Amino acid sequence: MSEIRKHYFLPEYCIIAEERAKRPSDFAGAAEGSEESLSESCVFCAGNEEKTPPATAVYRNGEVFADTWEKRVRNWDFRCFPNLYPALSPAPPSPGFGKDPEVLPGFGFHEVIVESPLHGKNLKDFSDTEISGLIRVYKDRVCHYAAHEKIRYVSLFKNSGKAAGASQDHPHSQLIALPVCPQILERELKAIREVEECPYCALLEKEKASPRLIHENSKFVAFAPYYSIGPFEVWVLPKEHINFLGNFSPELLFALGEILRAVLRSYAKVLGILPYNHMFYQLFETPEYHLNLRLLPRISTAAGFELNTGVYINTVSPEKTASYLRGNE
Amino acid sequence: MSEIRKHYFLPEYCIIAEERAKRPSDFAGAAEGSEESLSESCVFCAGNEEKTPPATAVYRNGEVFADTWEKRVRNWDFRCFPNLYPALSPAPPSPGFGKDPEVLPGFGFHEVIVESPLHGKNLKDFSDTEISGLIRVYKDRVCHYAAHEKIRYVSLFKNSGKAAGASQDHPHSQLIALPVCPQILERELKAIREVEECPYCALLEKEKASPRLIHENSKFVAFAPYYSIGPFEVWVLPKEHINFLGNFSPELLFALGEILRAVLRSYAKVLGILPYNHMFYQLFETPEYHLNLRLLPRISTAAGFELNTGVYINTVSPEKTASYLRGNE
Repeated sequence: MSEIRKHYFLPEYCIIAEERAKRPSDFAGAAEGSEESLSESCVFCAGNEEKTPPATAVYRNGEVFADTWEKRVRNWDFRCFPNLYPALSPAPPSPGFGKDPEVLPGFGFHEVIVESPLHGKNLKDFSDTEISGLIRVYKDRVCHYAAHEKIRYVSLFKNSGKAAGASQDHPHSQLIALPVCPQILERELKAIREVEECPYCALLEKEKASPRLIHENSKFVAFAPYYSIGPFEVWVLPKEHINFLGNFSPELLFALGEILRAVLRSYAKVLGILPYNHMFYQLFETPEYHLNLRLLPRISTAAGFELNTGVYINTVSPEKTASYLRGNE
Repeated sequence: MSEIRKHYFLPEYCIIAEERAKRPSDFAGAAEGSEESLSESCVFCAGNEEKTPPATAVYRNGEVFADTWEKRVRNWDFRCFPNLYPALSPAPPSPGFGKDPEVLPGFGFHEVIVESPLHGKNLKDFSDTEISGLIRVYKDRVCHYAAHEKIRYVSLFKNSGKAAGASQDHPHSQLIALPVCPQILERELKAIREVEECPYCALLEKEKASPRLIHENSKFVAFAPYYSIGPFEVWVLPKEHINFLGNFSPELLFALGEILRAVLRSYAKVLGILPYNHMFYQLFETPEYHLNLRLLPRISTAAGFELNTGVYINTVSPEKTASYLRGNE
């Protein structure tokens, strides 16, 4: 029989319905393209720097540079620039704005973080230096936008594969800095403030000893959450209570890269190339929050029921997910 | 410049970013299959009644029958039966259940409503009798499950096309009856109870006179909501305050069928065959609620940002959506 499971600390439910379960190989059809697909016309590739807006931050051997319209930095490791099709933009609002309190101008920042000069590079194959370098870039860019007086939330995420919303094959992450704090985070924060102990600290202790544990290192645990909205969802939590990438020590940055790569390697082993998102949940203004990173393979479709109710039907239990990803099945 | 727009009465935001806009023809790639695709092996087709669980309600010329395991009703207009792969099921929970208050047994009902004996039939081409007949079936089946003492919410929805979560081509709707009320509805209800006038009644008045109006008949309006989570989203609202399909008069049932068909015809004209969901929002225990039907073409992907924040980026403004669907562009 299926189960209706409650979120750890929110009044949200999901349905674990393994009657509809598939084996990991049944999801392989979700894979798109190939790791090897190279594209000379890719605007994110090294050599095509002129084809993007000037980079606001270019990383080379740990040093940070910036492009000008006239001169683009070459031989970079990571490259950050404004999205050419921004959802939000830093331009001042047009004169008509401000009359209706229900409309805010689309103020904000939308940045692309290119993770490698190489088109076919995959995070799971990054060296220690490369993966911890990327996490450092994440930290820097989030801090950069969090420091802006009008920014209330910085969404840092990766869309990999078309089904996950990516329009470019070249490995990249994105960052959207918002002038409002999203309700998803506000609701979590409200629930966190209503209890004495941080609920993430509590669930961390529980999941470390559960059949849902997948990977662990000195600083982080990766597990399939008890409340999982889709097959193979994974949450990564720092063992220490910390609200924001900006407060990460070099050791934490390194350990986060290590465990993220371990999860991606497990995905590749069990599911092959798959579309997935990863998203950081963090609140830079709120020490009560406990940063977490969530990974969600996009191998099921949110249909009318999920849109209608917000209740997700998940055909692979988190216990099964963890067992597969630990390599036990 | 893009706009950040607030929901009518919830603290939710969406981003209208027409910088990324496309013309309707750009979405045509989303179309899948063909209306003509027929399948002799389809288990929903007339003649294959033995291939599904026995129907709990079979409609023929306005009369209702039921299958038995031995005898299946033939020559039907609409046919309702338990989903063969149910997300929830009415079976009593196994003995282990009830120890953990955070786990509910997967109790509930999951029903398929086959909309026509013909595989290639499309709602938009239904006659007056057919479309109002279907809405009557909707009413009957929702009432049937709403009457169950353990049911708190009945989700009635349609997945059309693979991108909308449909696994069968044959036209059908679904119903999932839940023992809990989803937070999406609870949050709306809370907000509704905090104000004096029904916010749906208020927004209805506003949208009737707005550039977002699409269709109107004596009983309903169809409009592109000011807060739209995706291109071509449409809401259909009864002009009178009514909480539940069970309270619909025959005139309301007829008028709902008429306006639903009008919206689907507009979609077909502008977008061709497209994957879409339609979902009823209604609360049978709560007269304060104002029933509404929402239609969402599935031609954009909720990516990492949407998962992270719940803020949807919509590249077609509701004003533009309405203009296209009214036939003005």
